[in-house]
Amino acid sequence: MSQKHLYVINPNSSETVTAGIAAAMAPLQRAGDPHITCVTIADGPPGIQTQFDVDRAALAVHKFAQEHLDDAAGFVTACFSDPGLHLLREIKGVLSFGISESAALTAMTLGQRFGVIAILDGSIGRHWRTWGAMGITQRVAGEVAIGRSVTELADQASTLKAMIAAGERLKQEHGASVLVMGCAGMAPFRERLQDALGLPVVEPTQAAVSMALGRLRLGW
Amino acid sequence: MSQKHLYVINPNSSETVTAGIAAAMAPLQRAGDPHITCVTIADGPPGIQTQFDVDRAALAVHKFAQEHLDDAAGFVTACFSDPGLHLLREIKGVLSFGISESAALTAMTLGQRFGVIAILDGSIGRHWRTWGAMGITQRVAGEVAIGRSVTELADQASTLKAMIAAGERLKQEHGASVLVMGCAGMAPFRERLQDALGLPVVEPTQAAVSMALGRLRLGW
Amino acid sequence: MSQKHLYVINPNSSETVTAGIAAAMAPLQRAGDPHITCVTIADGPPGIQTQFDVDRAALAVHKFAQEHLDDAAGFVTACFSDPGLHLLREIKGVLSFGISESAALTAMTLGQRFGVIAILDGSIGRHWRTWGAMGITQRVAGEVAIGRSVTELADQASTLKAMIAAGERLKQEHGASVLVMGCAGMAPFRERLQDALGLPVVEPTQAAVSMALGRLRLGW
Amino acid sequence: MSQKHLYVINPNSSETVTAGIAAAMAPLQRAGDPHITCVTIADGPPGIQTQFDVDRAALAVHKFAQEHLDDAAGFVTACFSDPGLHLLREIKGVLSFGISESAALTAMTLGQRFGVIAILDGSIGRHWRTWGAMGITQRVAGEVAIGRSVTELADQASTLKAMIAAGERLKQEHGASVLVMGCAGMAPFRERLQDALGLPVVEPTQAAVSMALGRLRLGW
Amino acid sequence: MSQKHLYVINPNSSETVTAGIAAAMAPLQRAGDPHITCVTIADGPPGIQTQFDVDRAALAVHKFAQEHLDDAAGFVTACFSDPGLHLLREIKGVLSFGISESAALTAMTLGQRFGVIAILDGSIGRHWRTWGAMGITQRVAGEVAIGRSVTELADQASTLKAMIAAGERLKQEHGASVLVMGCAGMAPFRERLQDALGLPVVEPTQAAVSMALGRLRLGW
Amino acid sequence: MSQKHLYVINPNSSETVTAGIAAAMAPLQRAGDPHITCVTIADGPPGIQTQFDVDRAALAVHKFAQEHLDDAAGFVTACFSDPGLHLLREIKGVLSFGISESAALTAMTLGQRFGVIAILDGSIGRHWRTWGAMGITQRVAGEVAIGRSVTELADQASTLKAMIAAGERLKQEHGASVLVMGCAGMAPFRERLQDALGLPVVEPTQAAVSMALGRLRLGW
Repeated sequence: MSQKHLYVINPNSSETVTAGIAAAMAPLQRAGDPHITCVTIADGPPGIQTQFDVDRAALAVHKFAQEHLDDAAGFVTACFSDPGLHLLREIKGVLSFGISESAALTAMTLGQRFGVIAILDGSIGRHWRTWGAMGITQRVAGEVAIGRSVTELADQASTLKAMIAAGERLKQEHGASVLVMGCAGMAPFRERLQDALGLPVVEPTQAAVSMALGRLRLGW
Repeated sequence: MSQKHLYVINPNSSETVTAGIAAAMAPLQRAGDPHITCVTIADGPPGIQTQFDVDRAALAVHKFAQEHLDDAAGFVTACFSDPGLHLLREIKGVLSFGISESAALTAMTLGQRFGVIAILDGSIGRHWRTWGAMGITQRVAGEVAIGRSVTELADQASTLKAMIAAGERLKQEHGASVLVMGCAGMAPFRERLQDALGLPVVEPTQAAVSMALGRLRLGW
Repeated sequence: MSQKHLYVINPNSSETVTAGIAAAMAPLQRAGDPHITCVTIADGPPGIQTQFDVDRAALAVHKFAQEHLDDAAGFVTACFSDPGLHLLREIKGVLSFGISESAALTAMTLGQRFGVIAILDGSIGRHWRTWGAMGITQRVAGEVAIGRSVTELADQASTLKAMIAAGERLKQEHGASVLVMGCAGMAPFRERLQDALGLPVVEPTQAAVSMALGRLRLGW
Repeated sequence: MSQKHLYVINPNSSETVTAGIAAAMAPLQRAGDPHITCVTIADGPPGIQTQFDVDRAALAVHKFAQEHLDDAAGFVTACFSDPGLHLLREIKGVLSFGISESAALTAMTLGQRFGVIAILDGSIGRHWRTWGAMGITQRVAGEVAIGRSVTELADQASTLKAMIAAGERLKQEHGASVLVMGCAGMAPFRERLQDALGLPVVEPTQAAVSMALGRLRLGW
Repeated sequence: MSQKHLYVINPNSSETVTAGIAAAMAPLQRAGDPHITCVTIADGPPGIQTQFDVDRAALAVHKFAQEHLDDAAGFVTACFSDPGLHLLREIKGVLSFGISESAALTAMTLGQRFGVIAILDGSIGRHWRTWGAMGITQRVAGEVAIGRSVTELADQASTLKAMIAAGERLKQEHGASVLVMGCAGMAPFRERLQDALGLPVVEPTQAAVSMALGRLRLGW
Repeated sequence: MSQKHLYVINPNSSETVTAGIAAAMAPLQRAGDPHITCVTIADGPPGIQTQFDVDRAALAVHKFAQEHLDDAAGFVTACFSDPGLHLLREIKGVLSFGISESAALTAMTLGQRFGVIAILDGSIGRHWRTWGAMGITQRVAGEVAIGRSVTELADQASTLKAMIAAGERLKQEHGASVLVMGCAGMAPFRERLQDALGLPVVEPTQAAVSMALGRLRLGW
């Protein structure tokens, strides 16, 4: 039998973001598991920021999945709005995960109330709808946005500074005991953020792929 | 100034469903208000039943809206999965409503716990995600599906019978004191269902258009 | 058939408040609908501020309703504590709405988490009981009181200033994306507040009458 | 100092109900505590069943309280709709309790999910509003009505039979592990019901007076 | 029949804490009731602060209970983590209460949203699990820790100052309308804290013993 | 570096249960990961059924962990009451998971509302406390017990029959779309149960070890 893939689909067009995700996946790969393959939706927007971005991304992610069913073991939709997650779950014979859902479930094993560092204020309402749909709002301490677009994350020094400031607010004012990074593009900052804040920090794509690999072995 | 329209968009391709909706809208039209214009997405599926149907419908509804911005006062996405609702709400200068959201909010003025008569079992999980995202699960007594596709609703006698049976279960076993019809295609049955069950019954497109018209007058 | 009325009942004795409500109702009146008639309970207190005020207002509102059943299509209890709402709903043949309930349901179509600008600190606990009874606490970002009695609202400049300050706290500290004015007497401030804060602002009596008119056309 | 009273106010006019309550209070009286004094609102309705009954009872209970402030240590509003509870709590210098609130809080120490045996179906929505306002719906397994008015409780044999049937449904279908009797008039049945069902049964007036006496000793 | 005891078990080894508890119990004792007997688990830790402390205390409390069944009417586990509460409740023939559960239930009769003054930050997550298990998170305004260990409470002046500061934050920022002292060792501060803050303050062991005595009279 | 272990600790004394767990773990082991080592607490009770069993198991599990810190990468407490979970999480340098928590989080990726097949009725209240502490009660469709002790699970034919009956009730009456087996000893039945019911079935120890292995690779 040929090698199967766990496709991690970055629905924005940024190869930099995809590269950051791929680097974060490295520790998760094991012989005997599907290959973790990170891909970019080339004609996606530079960042998934509006509901329009999300809803278009849902179909783009689904289209990618349909085109790769032959060698796919599963799919991860690697944008914090989980575009297409429930669409992917209708496809028989593969397992699909979203990074937002997985990040939240993972955070729930690390502390009683988690805070989310969001990209933009405009995303926070959408996230709350997700926490509501998941039935876990009781576990959400709050969300604070850093006010930077996905593309602006590339300026690492000022991004890290903004993330630390947001994290401090979540810890001090909102009472968060664990943090979730609310964007796949934040992957390179996990360790530095955790060190700076003294709280566990969840990188959402790692959380999703980590859950996916285990379930792929189980086959259910 | 030319006449503005409140577009009620049926995202499935059934003209019968659209005609049923239009009939239900009749009592709501008043001089001085935007015209309630019910339209069919001609290339939509016969019924919105899967998540794939919903997610494609979201973009189709959005495309229709973009093409009719010139004479639109607002939009109602007339499928119980509210496809594209949050997408429509990003469009400046118009007001948008979803029939599922409006039906639930309306039911909350008619009784303490509402029951939903769903089309198919497969839709119920999706509805619960909506009630969760709305933060109102406490008000939902339960859901019971009649196990008939949208197209099968055309057989009125057996549909009504199935709806009454579902309503009885919601009343007796789940403790519902008000019922919501979980499909725009059920509009013709509202009155008969209410008479048979002795509980108020919410027709979701009427609920949405009713709320929309008031808000259009207020302009916020 | 003679003209029917939708009675909007201000249970405090302030004709100024009633006049402010009536002005806010103007855009909602349409030919063919019941007449929106705003009335004052002449022997009510100057403001409904304590639980005693609320509970007495409930019976005063009910008494008014009983005395006007002949020409009433419906009733709106126009105080943010919704005095008598459930009492009015026991009356057959009319539809009744409360401004607090309607404002909250309306806010839920405008943003994910709403903030409430209350009159006095002492009302906030009572409001939370209402949000709890409605099962929507998850959608409430918070409440901030302006610390002014109903009669003090008449000083418009300082009231507006206090409302803007409360709104800013709800937006910045509590994360509200939509605001609800927690008193019928605040009606004249809606537009200025919205302009100042850049968030949608719900005027509760408009919200209630808007919902009531639609439902009266539907007859259920 | 003269003897103070803890007034237990039965807001319906039934002396039989008051006598049943008084009998249930007997084991709670201790030297050094305020005297538990059970009184009847002579001009109350035979049973508190509608919202109108509840709202009028609120003022009647409050009026009684105002007239007895001289020798009152506290008040218990002894109807399961807790008429006037929040009104009584505005009175300085006395402590006030409601039997519904106290029964629920007490049940929460006896099992994880409680079931309520209601008098009439029409009361259940009102009760759910109370559980919602208290923020405890998660602890409510369900409610089942016996379909008998307060006055019909006097037929003890058939009442007990109906209560046992309701209790069995709450235990088997709703998963209740503790039961609350949803009417002060059910006091005489507590022990027999508990023996028949093998679940702890909360008598609400006992629950309220029990809590009130302790708090009166503490003085806060 | 010999005198029965209501054992109030301090699971930390501090006789000072036990003495403070005993003093707080004095107003609750009445002739005819079981004797309120406050005891110290001599080999307990100086303060119950970690989960390890809590889980060991659970078995220590249970062991004490087993050894005193002959003359016990009931038990109160007097540490704010309620160690052993559900263990004690498995013992037939006695009634058992926890001070955390009782304090929360009592606070719910004094205000709509309570704030908790915790000892250490590390306890707050554990408390939130308790509020979640009780299904009452909606009633919790928030928690603020004073950052002092149980033994450091002995320095009364600085402890009171820290408690007032925490209470102010709970009142101003979190909107608490009633406070719960989150440690049995805080008993001596109740009155001064209440006077300083102008909010009702719940002393948890008083709350628990107060509820226990009433229920012991009732015998259920 | 010597091989590290992920210890899966069965806190009951049944080697049969441990063997069943070990068999279920086989598909999860990969080269490069810690060794999945299933152990039995030899002096544990035959089944963890009472709160006393749970609380003693907590300390036994913790003692085992302390004694194996040298070669432990992490611990899984393999009893559905998660004995000692929060105790294990206080130990620095290892990762710890509970099978109940992990099963619930995993079920939340497989369906909107999960049902739990419990061993005994007496465990259900304890489980609800866990779902409450996790803040996920909204996702729980219900629980049904099979009424068999852990040791009686050995009779496979009748156990499977009882599990299928419980699963059918959860599906039909409670509306569950995914099932969780509420005991580590049920591991051998997962596949047969899933085939019989047509719903995904979560085996809790697989869920926990699956999550643990991914997190161990990530090191956070």
